[in-house]
Amino acid sequence: MSDPLSPEELDLINAYWRAANYLSIGQIYLFKNPLLKEPLHKEHVKPRLLGHWGTTPGLNFIYAHLNRIIKQHELNVMFVTGPGHGGPGLVANTYLEGTYTEHYPNITQDEAGMKRLFKQFSFPGGIPSHVAPETPGSIHEGGELGYALSHAYGAAFDNPGLIVACVIGDGEAETGPLATSWHSNKFLNPERDGVVLPILHLNGYKIANPTVLARISHEELDHLLRGYGYNPYYVEGRDPEKMHQLMAASMDHVTQEIRDIVSKARQDPGFIRPRWPMIVLRTPKGWTCPKEVDGLPVEDSWRSHQVPLGQMHENPEHLKLLEQWMQSYKPEELFDEQGCLRKEIADLAPSGELRMGANPHANGGTLLKRLRLPDFRDYAVEVPYPGSVKGEATRVQGKFIRDVMQLNLESRNFRIFSPDENASNRWANVFEVAGRGFVGEILPTDDHLSPEGRVMEMLSEHQCQGWLEGYLLTGRHGFFNCYEAFIHIIDSMFNQHAKWLKVSKEIPWRRPIASLNYLLSSHVWRQDHNGFSHQDPGFIDHVVNKKAEIIRVYLPPDANCLLSITDHCLRSRDYVNVVVAGKQPSPQWLSMEQAIKHTAAGISIWDWASSDQGSEPDVVLGCCGDVPTLETLAAVDIIRQELPELKVRVINVVNLMKLQSPREHPHALSDTDFDSLFTTNKPIIFAFHGYPWLIHRLTYRRTNHKNLHVRGYKEEGTTTTPFDMVVLNDLDRFHLVQDVIDRVPNLGAKAAYLKQAMRDKLIEHKQYIREYGEDMPEVLNWTWSGREE
Amino acid sequence: MSDPLSPEELDLINAYWRAANYLSIGQIYLFKNPLLKEPLHKEHVKPRLLGHWGTTPGLNFIYAHLNRIIKQHELNVMFVTGPGHGGPGLVANTYLEGTYTEHYPNITQDEAGMKRLFKQFSFPGGIPSHVAPETPGSIHEGGELGYALSHAYGAAFDNPGLIVACVIGDGEAETGPLATSWHSNKFLNPERDGVVLPILHLNGYKIANPTVLARISHEELDHLLRGYGYNPYYVEGRDPEKMHQLMAASMDHVTQEIRDIVSKARQDPGFIRPRWPMIVLRTPKGWTCPKEVDGLPVEDSWRSHQVPLGQMHENPEHLKLLEQWMQSYKPEELFDEQGCLRKEIADLAPSGELRMGANPHANGGTLLKRLRLPDFRDYAVEVPYPGSVKGEATRVQGKFIRDVMQLNLESRNFRIFSPDENASNRWANVFEVAGRGFVGEILPTDDHLSPEGRVMEMLSEHQCQGWLEGYLLTGRHGFFNCYEAFIHIIDSMFNQHAKWLKVSKEIPWRRPIASLNYLLSSHVWRQDHNGFSHQDPGFIDHVVNKKAEIIRVYLPPDANCLLSITDHCLRSRDYVNVVVAGKQPSPQWLSMEQAIKHTAAGISIWDWASSDQGSEPDVVLGCCGDVPTLETLAAVDIIRQELPELKVRVINVVNLMKLQSPREHPHALSDTDFDSLFTTNKPIIFAFHGYPWLIHRLTYRRTNHKNLHVRGYKEEGTTTTPFDMVVLNDLDRFHLVQDVIDRVPNLGAKAAYLKQAMRDKLIEHKQYIREYGEDMPEVLNWTWSGREE
Repeated sequence: MSDPLSPEELDLINAYWRAANYLSIGQIYLFKNPLLKEPLHKEHVKPRLLGHWGTTPGLNFIYAHLNRIIKQHELNVMFVTGPGHGGPGLVANTYLEGTYTEHYPNITQDEAGMKRLFKQFSFPGGIPSHVAPETPGSIHEGGELGYALSHAYGAAFDNPGLIVACVIGDGEAETGPLATSWHSNKFLNPERDGVVLPILHLNGYKIANPTVLARISHEELDHLLRGYGYNPYYVEGRDPEKMHQLMAASMDHVTQEIRDIVSKARQDPGFIRPRWPMIVLRTPKGWTCPKEVDGLPVEDSWRSHQVPLGQMHENPEHLKLLEQWMQSYKPEELFDEQGCLRKEIADLAPSGELRMGANPHANGGTLLKRLRLPDFRDYAVEVPYPGSVKGEATRVQGKFIRDVMQLNLESRNFRIFSPDENASNRWANVFEVAGRGFVGEILPTDDHLSPEGRVMEMLSEHQCQGWLEGYLLTGRHGFFNCYEAFIHIIDSMFNQHAKWLKVSKEIPWRRPIASLNYLLSSHVWRQDHNGFSHQDPGFIDHVVNKKAEIIRVYLPPDANCLLSITDHCLRSRDYVNVVVAGKQPSPQWLSMEQAIKHTAAGISIWDWASSDQGSEPDVVLGCCGDVPTLETLAAVDIIRQELPELKVRVINVVNLMKLQSPREHPHALSDTDFDSLFTTNKPIIFAFHGYPWLIHRLTYRRTNHKNLHVRGYKEEGTTTTPFDMVVLNDLDRFHLVQDVIDRVPNLGAKAAYLKQAMRDKLIEHKQYIREYGEDMPEVLNWTWSGREE
Repeated sequence: MSDPLSPEELDLINAYWRAANYLSIGQIYLFKNPLLKEPLHKEHVKPRLLGHWGTTPGLNFIYAHLNRIIKQHELNVMFVTGPGHGGPGLVANTYLEGTYTEHYPNITQDEAGMKRLFKQFSFPGGIPSHVAPETPGSIHEGGELGYALSHAYGAAFDNPGLIVACVIGDGEAETGPLATSWHSNKFLNPERDGVVLPILHLNGYKIANPTVLARISHEELDHLLRGYGYNPYYVEGRDPEKMHQLMAASMDHVTQEIRDIVSKARQDPGFIRPRWPMIVLRTPKGWTCPKEVDGLPVEDSWRSHQVPLGQMHENPEHLKLLEQWMQSYKPEELFDEQGCLRKEIADLAPSGELRMGANPHANGGTLLKRLRLPDFRDYAVEVPYPGSVKGEATRVQGKFIRDVMQLNLESRNFRIFSPDENASNRWANVFEVAGRGFVGEILPTDDHLSPEGRVMEMLSEHQCQGWLEGYLLTGRHGFFNCYEAFIHIIDSMFNQHAKWLKVSKEIPWRRPIASLNYLLSSHVWRQDHNGFSHQDPGFIDHVVNKKAEIIRVYLPPDANCLLSITDHCLRSRDYVNVVVAGKQPSPQWLSMEQAIKHTAAGISIWDWASSDQGSEPDVVLGCCGDVPTLETLAAVDIIRQELPELKVRVINVVNLMKLQSPREHPHALSDTDFDSLFTTNKPIIFAFHGYPWLIHRLTYRRTNHKNLHVRGYKEEGTTTTPFDMVVLNDLDRFHLVQDVIDRVPNLGAKAAYLKQAMRDKLIEHKQYIREYGEDMPEVLNWTWSGREE
């Protein structure tokens, strides 16, 4: 390639890079004396040195060159920083381009501002050391590694004008999620979506080890990237001048190639999946820092990962070395006497929203449009009286979702993400209006597969979660449809997103984004066919550890409640909504009107099922989750028939956070309300969808907690019948009736007789299923015997 | 390639395959009439059809061809079934080779046994539908997908005579963990380790979608696999005869290539990483099942994923079709009148331990050798009196681990696994005896990197966990060394392993294996430098949801306790041990003798810190975790000085499960013991390492729970100082003193004055860190003022 930069251009872009490097080091080290106007003294250096230099010069290099093509072609580019520990670099660049000062007016573009910029970094009361919500232009936290490319693709979906430049560290490239996320290109439609430009930064080392991709042959690396479907351009070396020319030339090629691909695809509706260009940038780690410190290699070694030089207060030689290092960037050539970036250098940055720190997509809330929602009441299951009809809750919900999809097809701001479980979880009706997205070979036997599809299915929960996060963070809406047990795969990603939301809410310029919505179906009680490995209701337990302001957990007992909750979730902002609902046919309890009231309350007494008629009950039966509700009502049915004198109150919980102490969660019931529901001294038998101790954890401060007895999943299960799953965990009607008898005092001989009958039923059940392989007719065909019209 | 099979051999191997297919379908469908001696009637068919056919014929095909080369070359081969939902296939094959009947004598190799074999599958009281601990020859659960290849490599490490054949489904291949696990070949040393033979089974479809790898071009696929470092052989087609010849020829090539690689590497110590062979098997999904059902394609389509034909009881045509399908394998040619596999076919299977169902590595406990352990007392930190010295707990532990490594170097049965965090977590001393494993280019600047290394570091928690599980399940020992926050990445893998252990314990022929040990360091309280994204102590919460018999959680307060716990973990079997310990210099509390007593008890009163002198205290200060212990003692120090009349009892908890109700956990304290420690009515201020509600969850049944007040991490943090991290979460000494004052009644004016002083201290702290960026000297230099000699 010929050299695209004139000598002047080369000098200027190199100066821009030097300025970013200088500011990055300043942030890591300096407290005072930001322009080194005085000789560097140990009092100028921070007492604790926190930050990562290793990846930073590479990030600064890429940023400068992206600025160049943005300016040249007026491109709309967003920057995703895979190696997010390179926080100083992103802060430096947004400061240089002016966006930092716009967001934080105190950090002025002068010496005083630079001093504050330096001091605040990794400093108490200041800013985090990693890329974070505080960083302008970012949608991607520097924390856990692995999701950069998924986030980038999520951002690019339905953003046809956008290029997402995504830097991938070679450490990050070893993670599983990143390794599969390269395949996102099979789901990106160049006609309708934006572009992702992956930039693999091979700087050779992680914390203490070389990286795998830096130590395989060029041939293997090239095969790998082509195997992933990309066309790699290599920018390799260490000499800044040569590297600038090479990078500029590669950026020019890549830009042209992207434009060609996009314009071709938009002209030709029958396009085939393009081989998207990407860049491999191979540089020394810690590029331009001291080559050696104390006789040990630092530049181009793992030793430059964090702070290349330590002990500044004890070791005068290190202090000297730091000064020399910082002076090597010649700050006086970069900044004027007032500490302001010289104009000819500053002019290299694009202006306005073309600055990557000001890209509106990176503050997605500013672009967020409300979804058009159909009236969820129109999808109601007709329930003449409780239990009179059966329904498949998620299938009903799927029809509502289908029409949400339909109503927002034009705005292109709603997608569904699922690891090949969308149909299995009964949302197949969605395919009537939008297929599954796939950009590749499609066969006639495929089911609703198309490059236009908006249901994103790849067998990777990581990919689904990462795409969805990227999509939401750039101001759109979505739903994750997943098997309950395997949502744990993204426990850690959920953590990171919840943390992002918590911090974003505290930053005035970050606008609210759409909530991250999970439908968890094929849940623990209906994994009787796949068995023990598919049974885990513990995602809720994980979720409730995060900040209460962020977290919502719903367990609707039937289809109408699920509809009402779904509508609510799609309207909400800045939450993570977890909705657990079954897909199998089961009795429907509430009319739509009742469901709306019940879900709005989040918890209520089901009068029609209770026999306390407004007086103090003898026992409270609580239930939460569809299967526990079914078993509770079946138990109540038995009790009301066999022990009609016993006053039973049935309480159903939809919004789990209602149970928690009002000191902990904004949704919580007041103690007075809780007491009036659950009494202060009567036994409570609570049938719960998940692990029973979660209910104890949420209610331990409540007055009547001592009388609370919870049944739930206690890690017992195998391949068996649906009813046997509840029996194995003592959650079935026959156990619940016994629990009531055991806990209500003075019930007498009739109750003792009933208890024995319940035991006999359980023996009968076991014998029956072992002989016939399915549940007893009396269980299969049970219906609620109470009837109100 | 020429045809390696004679016509007779071809007939026989095809017959073997037909037999396995027949038995697989029989398991999914039949209840009675196993040999179809009568016309198939709906009463012969199970009422509920559960199981997966789609992947099964491919698994059966592979198994038969592996049998052939095992027999031919007397190879030691273990089988890992990535598509573990193909349970019927593995059951069928182990039945055919005789291992199934050896483990389950009731399942005889005759018609009656076959009937029981069929009935038990996915049947209440029978066996799971997926590959499970119950399946002979398996180390890999059919549940969550993604870990087959990591398990296979883990099994191959240090097993130079073993070949692990690992089938990877093309669905599974889309997961992140699987996508990165291909790179395991950079960590396998052909001189010392066994061999992994990946067999990518491209059958084109997942549950409802095509797979990505089946829809990229041959060229891309070939690039990808070569880029991963493999030499792929393609076996593609649908005609059984041709496919048998092609598979046999490929197996012959692959076997030869493996032998060449291994013998070359073992002769030449300077070998370079070989390109290991692998097989790509492309077949129709559901191969040999009905092509169409009700006019819709089934074979070679996603419709064959589970049960290709349903509604057997309602639809006579389907019943007819099933009969034709089963008859198409000509069972009368395969089994004799008694239902016994014909001898000439049965002879195709290897015998004894060469049968894959009998491979001893797949029941690792049978091969388990105890570790040789040095005396952990020899590594003790000298602690003349509590708090008199500082130590880095995990560094001390690392020296012990180093010598464990040393003592077992010859037996080659101990490895460490870490996502590039072994040195960061202060186990660098291990490198004195064993380096980091890496088979590839090594540069002079690399730190203890070698093909001989036994510290396995790749930046993938999934890979580390998968390797370690494979290593343990085949009868060896190991430790996972990880940052606390990011261990959540393997939450779901932990689930699967804990479930495997729970079920294995119930199977008489499964022998106990070494426990899975986690060291979680760089924990929440010392992520003041990396910030909020690195702070999460919730793995414990996740872990305690699993069966109590499997789970152990330890939070040693200092180095000597950590040593004692580590020794205990390395001796234990069939547990998951989670050890949380800090790496930063901090005060040491207990002499080794005290530490042994304390860790054996799991919880005890620290008399030297208490001022209740055996009488009833006014307040109990509980602590669990190193940082909470430090803050508690610092608080006690203040209280003892300022309020000397207050009787304080200090209780430290090492073994978290001591707190739980004895009804829930075998380690739990009795209620009497709990009451005598914590009193029945005095306030308890409990400083906990993790989320505070976990302590409530564990103790809600205890007498004095109502007076328990817990401080812990409540999701507040950023980049700040270490002490500020505890302040942000109200866990610091100044808050704890206030908590005591607030909860002990009638303390009077002196206490009120002290409370105000504590508030002032917190203000002073905030001002100090914002000015100086580090903690106040009085915090940094605090030492325990009590002294006993």
